[in-house]
Amino acid sequence: MTDPVELTANLIRCPSVTPEEGGALVLLQRELADAGFECTRVDRGGVSNLFARWGKKGHARSFGFNGHTDVVPLGDEAAWTAPPFGAEIRDGVMYGRGATDMKSGVAAFAAAAIDFVRNTPPDGAVILTITGDEEGDAVDGTVALLDHMDATDERMSVCLVGEPTCPNKMGEMMKIGRRGSMSAWFIVTGVQGHSAYPHRANNPLPAMARLMDRLASRELDQGTDHFDASTLAVVTIDTGNPATNVIPAQCSGTVNIRFNDLHSGVSLSDWLKSEAESVAKAFGVEIETKIKISGESFLTPPGRLSDLVARAVESETNICPELSTTGGTSDARFIKNHCPVVEFGLVGRTMHQVDECVEVAQIHQLKAIYARILSDYFA
Amino acid sequence: MTDPVELTANLIRCPSVTPEEGGALVLLQRELADAGFECTRVDRGGVSNLFARWGKKGHARSFGFNGHTDVVPLGDEAAWTAPPFGAEIRDGVMYGRGATDMKSGVAAFAAAAIDFVRNTPPDGAVILTITGDEEGDAVDGTVALLDHMDATDERMSVCLVGEPTCPNKMGEMMKIGRRGSMSAWFIVTGVQGHSAYPHRANNPLPAMARLMDRLASRELDQGTDHFDASTLAVVTIDTGNPATNVIPAQCSGTVNIRFNDLHSGVSLSDWLKSEAESVAKAFGVEIETKIKISGESFLTPPGRLSDLVARAVESETNICPELSTTGGTSDARFIKNHCPVVEFGLVGRTMHQVDECVEVAQIHQLKAIYARILSDYFA
Repeated sequence: MTDPVELTANLIRCPSVTPEEGGALVLLQRELADAGFECTRVDRGGVSNLFARWGKKGHARSFGFNGHTDVVPLGDEAAWTAPPFGAEIRDGVMYGRGATDMKSGVAAFAAAAIDFVRNTPPDGAVILTITGDEEGDAVDGTVALLDHMDATDERMSVCLVGEPTCPNKMGEMMKIGRRGSMSAWFIVTGVQGHSAYPHRANNPLPAMARLMDRLASRELDQGTDHFDASTLAVVTIDTGNPATNVIPAQCSGTVNIRFNDLHSGVSLSDWLKSEAESVAKAFGVEIETKIKISGESFLTPPGRLSDLVARAVESETNICPELSTTGGTSDARFIKNHCPVVEFGLVGRTMHQVDECVEVAQIHQLKAIYARILSDYFA
Repeated sequence: MTDPVELTANLIRCPSVTPEEGGALVLLQRELADAGFECTRVDRGGVSNLFARWGKKGHARSFGFNGHTDVVPLGDEAAWTAPPFGAEIRDGVMYGRGATDMKSGVAAFAAAAIDFVRNTPPDGAVILTITGDEEGDAVDGTVALLDHMDATDERMSVCLVGEPTCPNKMGEMMKIGRRGSMSAWFIVTGVQGHSAYPHRANNPLPAMARLMDRLASRELDQGTDHFDASTLAVVTIDTGNPATNVIPAQCSGTVNIRFNDLHSGVSLSDWLKSEAESVAKAFGVEIETKIKISGESFLTPPGRLSDLVARAVESETNICPELSTTGGTSDARFIKNHCPVVEFGLVGRTMHQVDECVEVAQIHQLKAIYARILSDYFA
C-alpha cells in the first residue's frame, strides 16, 4: 500500500514555487515509473510537466487525472509557525506550502492509482497529467501537456482535476464547470483644457462615467440551470488629475466579468466594444478597448462522470456533494476541450495562506475516494 | 508729469512674490504720500496691504481703484531671456514678472491719480486699495483692506479693478462681473471584495459613475443677459485599484463649477448634496461630499460706471470695449459687496508665463485711459 501522507510530505519538501520544478516531478516520475507507468517529461517555456500513462495508449477507457505540483510564494515567511517546506505534523495536521493546494491531491491520486494498477490491473489506461505551472501564467503548463497529447495521439476519455473543491467540510462540493473570466481596459481620450472654458476642451470623464454606468447597470442574465448569474464588476476608474481648474485629456477604467454558459468571451467582447463605440460616438471622444479573456465558461453536464465521482464521495464521507460551478478558474478550463472534466478535492480553506495545512486523515480519505472512483470506473 | 513706465520698472525691481512685500508697497506709499495721499499700511496674516486716500474721508464722490503688487513665482527661471526682476526694455517691450499682472496697471493708475490730484484737485476723494495677496490665498489681501475700511468708516463710491482684461488687443474688453467658482469632492465608500463574488461586496464605482453621469448631464442653464451658460466639469475620478480580481472599497471624484447669476454657491451645494444623497440611497453606499466655494458670481449691471469706463477706453483706443463676464475670479468678487465694481486693464497674454512682458506704449495708453476716467468721473 502506498502511503499518500508520506508522498505528500516528500512533495512538500520539494521547494517548487512556480516556475521551479524543485524535485517534485522527478519524485513523482520515479514513483509512477516503478509502478509501471510510462512517463514523459513535457517541458516548455522554462516550465516542467509530467505525462504518465499506465496501460495501452489510445484505449477507449482511459481515466485521466490532472493536478499541479507548483505552489504560490510563501508570503510573509516570518509569520509561518512551521517550516513552509518542512511538512511538519502537529496534532494530526500537516503544515507546508502546497499542503492543500495541491500536493496532497496529487499524492492521494498517485497513491490510489499505483495501488490500483498493482493490485487490480484494469482493462484500460490510467493517465496522470501533472503540471508545474498552474499558479503562474499557465501558458506552458496543462496547455503544453494537452498539446503534447494531441501531437502524440494520447487521449483521456474523462478527466478528474484534483484541486481543493470543498469550502468547509470534506465531501460537500465538487465542480462540474466553471464560470468564464475576462477583463476589459478602457482608455477614454478627449482634449485637455481649463475648467472655466469646458467648451474649448473635450472632457473624457463624462463619457467614462456614462460607459461605466451602462456596463454596470446591464443585467447580463439571471443564471442558468447550473450557473449563478453572470456578473460585471467595475474594478477601477483612474485619472490622476490633482488640479480642479484643469480638464484632463485622458482617463482609464477597468471591468472584470465572470460569465456563465449563456456567454462567450467573444460575445461579451463584442458587447463591450459596441457599448464603448456608442459612448465614444455620443460624446465625441476616442475610446480604446483592450480585452483579456482568462477563461471561457464550461460545463460538463451532470451525468455518468459526475455520478461516478459523487457516488464515490458519498460512499466515503456520507455526504452527497453539491454539483457546483462557483469559484475562480482552474486548469479544467483547458481540459474541457479535450474530454469531459469534473473536479473534486479536499477542503481548501488555508490555500495560498501562511501556515497552509491539511488534516492527515483527510489525505487518507481523499486517497480512498480516488481509489473508489478508479475501481468504479473500470468495473 | 509722473512717468508710469519708470514706476512700473521700479515696481518690477521689487521681488514681491506672494507673500513677500519686496519693497513694492513701500515704494508706492512714498510716491502717493508725496502727492498728498493719506496712507495706511493694513498688514494681516503675514501679508502687506496699502490703503491710500486723497481728499476727504466719507466724501460722496470717492473713486476707488484696486490692484495688487504681489506676483506669481518665476517658474522655470533658467528659461527667462531677461532678468525676471530687471524690467529690461527691448524693442519697446518691458520684461519682468508682474509686467502685465499687474505692476503696470498699479503704476498707470497711481501715476494718473497723482497727476490728477496735483493738477486738477477734484471735489471728492481718490482711493487706492493695493494688496500684496491676490495671487495667494487672498484671505488677508483685499478682504483685509475692506475689513479695515468697514472698521474705519472709509468708503469707495465706485471701484475700478486694474487687472489685465484684454485678450489680444488693447481696449477690446472690460469686465462687469465674473462667474462664480466652486469645487466639490465626493468620496464614495462601499465594501471591498472579490470580483468573482460581487454580491458579497458593495462596489462604490457604479454609484460614482452614476453620480458623475448625472452631474455632467445636467444643463445648469442656457446663460443670461450678461453671462454665458454655467458649466460643470468632472475633473477627476480616482480609485487606484491595480487588481482586476478585487472590488475596491472606495473611490473619489471631483467636479468644478463655473456659475452665473442664476445660481449661488449655496443653491448649487444643495443640488450637489441632494444628487449625492439620492445616488447613495439608490446604490446603498456612503457618499461624503466636501464643497469649497471660491467665489460667488456677481454682476455690476451696465450703467453709469461701465459707460464711464467704456467711453474713456474708446476715446483713447478707438475701440468700444465688450462688457464681459468671462474668465476666472478676481478680487472684484470681494469688492462687489462694498460698491459697484468693474475691471479694465491691458492685454494679459503673457501673464504668469516665462518672459512676462508689456509693451511700453501700452502703459502710457493705460495711464491715459485711467486719467480720462478720473477727470470724467469728477467732471
